[in-house]
Amino acid sequence: MIMRNTPVDEQIIEDKIAQSGLNDLGKATIREIVGLVNQIQEASGVKFLRMEMGVPGLLPSEYGTQAEIDALKRGVARDYPMVDGVKELKNQASLFVKNFMNIDISPQSCIPTVGSMQGGYAIFLINNFLDPKKDTALFIDPGFPVQKQQFRVLGQKYESFDVYNYRGEALREKLESYLKKGNINSIIYSNPNNPTWICFTEQELQIIGDLCNKYDVIAVEDLAYFGMDFRRDISTPGKPPYQVSVANYTKNYVLLISSSKAFSYAGQRMAITCVADEIYNKSYPYLKERFGTDKYGYTLVLRIIYSLSSGATHSTQYAFAAMLKAANDGHFNFVENVKEYGKRAEIMKKLFTDAGFKIVYNKDVDLELADGFYFTIQYPNMSGDELLRELLHYGISAISLDNTGSEHKDALRACVSQISLNMMDMLQERLDQFKNDHI
Amino acid sequence: MIMRNTPVDEQIIEDKIAQSGLNDLGKATIREIVGLVNQIQEASGVKFLRMEMGVPGLLPSEYGTQAEIDALKRGVARDYPMVDGVKELKNQASLFVKNFMNIDISPQSCIPTVGSMQGGYAIFLINNFLDPKKDTALFIDPGFPVQKQQFRVLGQKYESFDVYNYRGEALREKLESYLKKGNINSIIYSNPNNPTWICFTEQELQIIGDLCNKYDVIAVEDLAYFGMDFRRDISTPGKPPYQVSVANYTKNYVLLISSSKAFSYAGQRMAITCVADEIYNKSYPYLKERFGTDKYGYTLVLRIIYSLSSGATHSTQYAFAAMLKAANDGHFNFVENVKEYGKRAEIMKKLFTDAGFKIVYNKDVDLELADGFYFTIQYPNMSGDELLRELLHYGISAISLDNTGSEHKDALRACVSQISLNMMDMLQERLDQFKNDHI
Repeated sequence: MIMRNTPVDEQIIEDKIAQSGLNDLGKATIREIVGLVNQIQEASGVKFLRMEMGVPGLLPSEYGTQAEIDALKRGVARDYPMVDGVKELKNQASLFVKNFMNIDISPQSCIPTVGSMQGGYAIFLINNFLDPKKDTALFIDPGFPVQKQQFRVLGQKYESFDVYNYRGEALREKLESYLKKGNINSIIYSNPNNPTWICFTEQELQIIGDLCNKYDVIAVEDLAYFGMDFRRDISTPGKPPYQVSVANYTKNYVLLISSSKAFSYAGQRMAITCVADEIYNKSYPYLKERFGTDKYGYTLVLRIIYSLSSGATHSTQYAFAAMLKAANDGHFNFVENVKEYGKRAEIMKKLFTDAGFKIVYNKDVDLELADGFYFTIQYPNMSGDELLRELLHYGISAISLDNTGSEHKDALRACVSQISLNMMDMLQERLDQFKNDHI
Repeated sequence: MIMRNTPVDEQIIEDKIAQSGLNDLGKATIREIVGLVNQIQEASGVKFLRMEMGVPGLLPSEYGTQAEIDALKRGVARDYPMVDGVKELKNQASLFVKNFMNIDISPQSCIPTVGSMQGGYAIFLINNFLDPKKDTALFIDPGFPVQKQQFRVLGQKYESFDVYNYRGEALREKLESYLKKGNINSIIYSNPNNPTWICFTEQELQIIGDLCNKYDVIAVEDLAYFGMDFRRDISTPGKPPYQVSVANYTKNYVLLISSSKAFSYAGQRMAITCVADEIYNKSYPYLKERFGTDKYGYTLVLRIIYSLSSGATHSTQYAFAAMLKAANDGHFNFVENVKEYGKRAEIMKKLFTDAGFKIVYNKDVDLELADGFYFTIQYPNMSGDELLRELLHYGISAISLDNTGSEHKDALRACVSQISLNMMDMLQERLDQFKNDHI
């Protein structure tokens, strides 16, 4: 052990890790790290720079909360929402994808869900019953670990690969090596990506779209960080540039658009699942065996989402509708509202690299990575477990990429959302000390 | 066809039924009947007396909506709720079951869910993976058809029987005929019962509890209509009488307590799933195969509910907490608030029986049935399809018991919630005409 005087006492860290029962911090879940850091923080009195949780750090817009309050005053709490959603939200969602993606999806095919967690669960479930031969989903990893957990809960199969070595044209052959086996029903990915913040290029999205057409599989595009690739300002409704999407290259797609991050509305559990009209209205005879109905959209809404929760919270649907309407009308620049995350990332990445860290996922083919909600770091000759432990001594917490399907088991995901701009001096101080202690 | 001049034109009814594609109204779902009646109402201009939907017809208490508005003003919309629920709600739920059921459940084991629809889905799912031999649930029917649909979505097995001929001591042998086969993991029922409003007696609940102990199966008691057996006024906190429950007779139970009906809060999708502490903390090794964890409570919350929606809407948790607190503190008599349903049922049952109808499920062993949210009717020599069609001519709608597991396929469920007291004269008028037309 190096002799040193770190911000957090060595013994407290050792004790709390021992008490937690976590033998390898690199294998710990986000919630386990959160719990451990809470313990260490309390025992040491040191305020941590918390980079482990992907929670919004900015306030939601008044458009949302005020509309929700107004709806409650109107008494909507009493009345079941329609399972397929209130009209106002469906209409605004359809306009939103037109205005900010230049994609046409009818209001009918835009379904509110209890967060994209429910949207994903429902879509993963239905996609498994479209064709008896296609019983496996394919993740383009790294990815959000809870989606894998959803597959475990569903009792359904998936395969996955780390996209790190398969960017650009190389993605085609890699994807096709899975698809040609004939057992894949869908390709799942997030864009921008959680946990690495890589963003697929138009070329890559076209490859995914082309292959979805060729092999008749569905692209499930998780747009949790809609508009948050700040290299392209998509914030003007009806004008390019637009949020990039596979929807430009295939009609076999489902988009998950969450209010949690882009609209800082995570607490209310609200998202829109946008199904391509061509899929929504399509009949899949095999669906009937499991669900008694054969149309994708009808089965999704009136069999699956109805069974999961009878729809999504009534007042919150009006909140999301109001935020989307304000964005559609050009009154509310939702991208500007979250741009601060990019500013934070730019500073933090420099502080980490100056201290000897390396950004692991650092390119979109030939482009520099965007600054956004997450970035990934590693430190020479340290495993993920070692690096996490070391950072704890300096009052800094993060999670490992080990659970995300990444091959970079020694890398960590850093989330900027809890590190406000006025905390950067403290981060610099701690990283300076880290650097001095590790020369 | 009888020649007559009914409130709704014969031809419109024939046309709209033909357009709906519903060959047998007795097989139609609630939502299909709702759609059909909307069509007929619009075409005929006759305002229907709508008894088909089990939706709240009374306003929620200010305690709920005001607390929710206050929470939104505090900014909770931004922050993910803990998956196991906000403390205030867990504490008040624990107090609530103590005050109104005289049952001890720790706050830890009271989990908010996105309605009892999600609570049921999660519980049905986990109960299927407690023991590899026990792969089947048992419904005491009649029951809520959507719970059967949930099993279809889950791909899990159930058996069921109509309790009509097995009330009182006869229930024991009937239940045991299923349980002794060794494949049953849980017994599911609602009390008061949807659709028939029968209420199990203490003797019957003891039989269920005893058998849950004997065969190690879990009673899933759906208390959607908590306190709404108005024959017993349970509304004084901490004082008998209490809401009856299987929890007095076994530690193998889960209670589903919804805000939708007893608190008229259906729109916000909020319920509490109360798991007996003994079950919550119990380890089931077989759970680990599917979910990777073996404790019932941990698996339910951090594997299943997390996967379904990452918890329940944040602001609504404060609304339900506030309503429960007001009830616990004796400031809010939630039973008094919904007693009007009983008054309506008493009048409506008399109007229907005076017109020649029979109440089908009409006894709780030796007790007259309570007046509450639902009752069941039949008319001599008419099938469910015929009776539904006939009633449509008189501007009255209901649903058949055919989908509910009842053996009384000719019976209908009538819901009182949309028939306010000032509509009783119109109901009487229409039933008088029905009576005259069918002598």
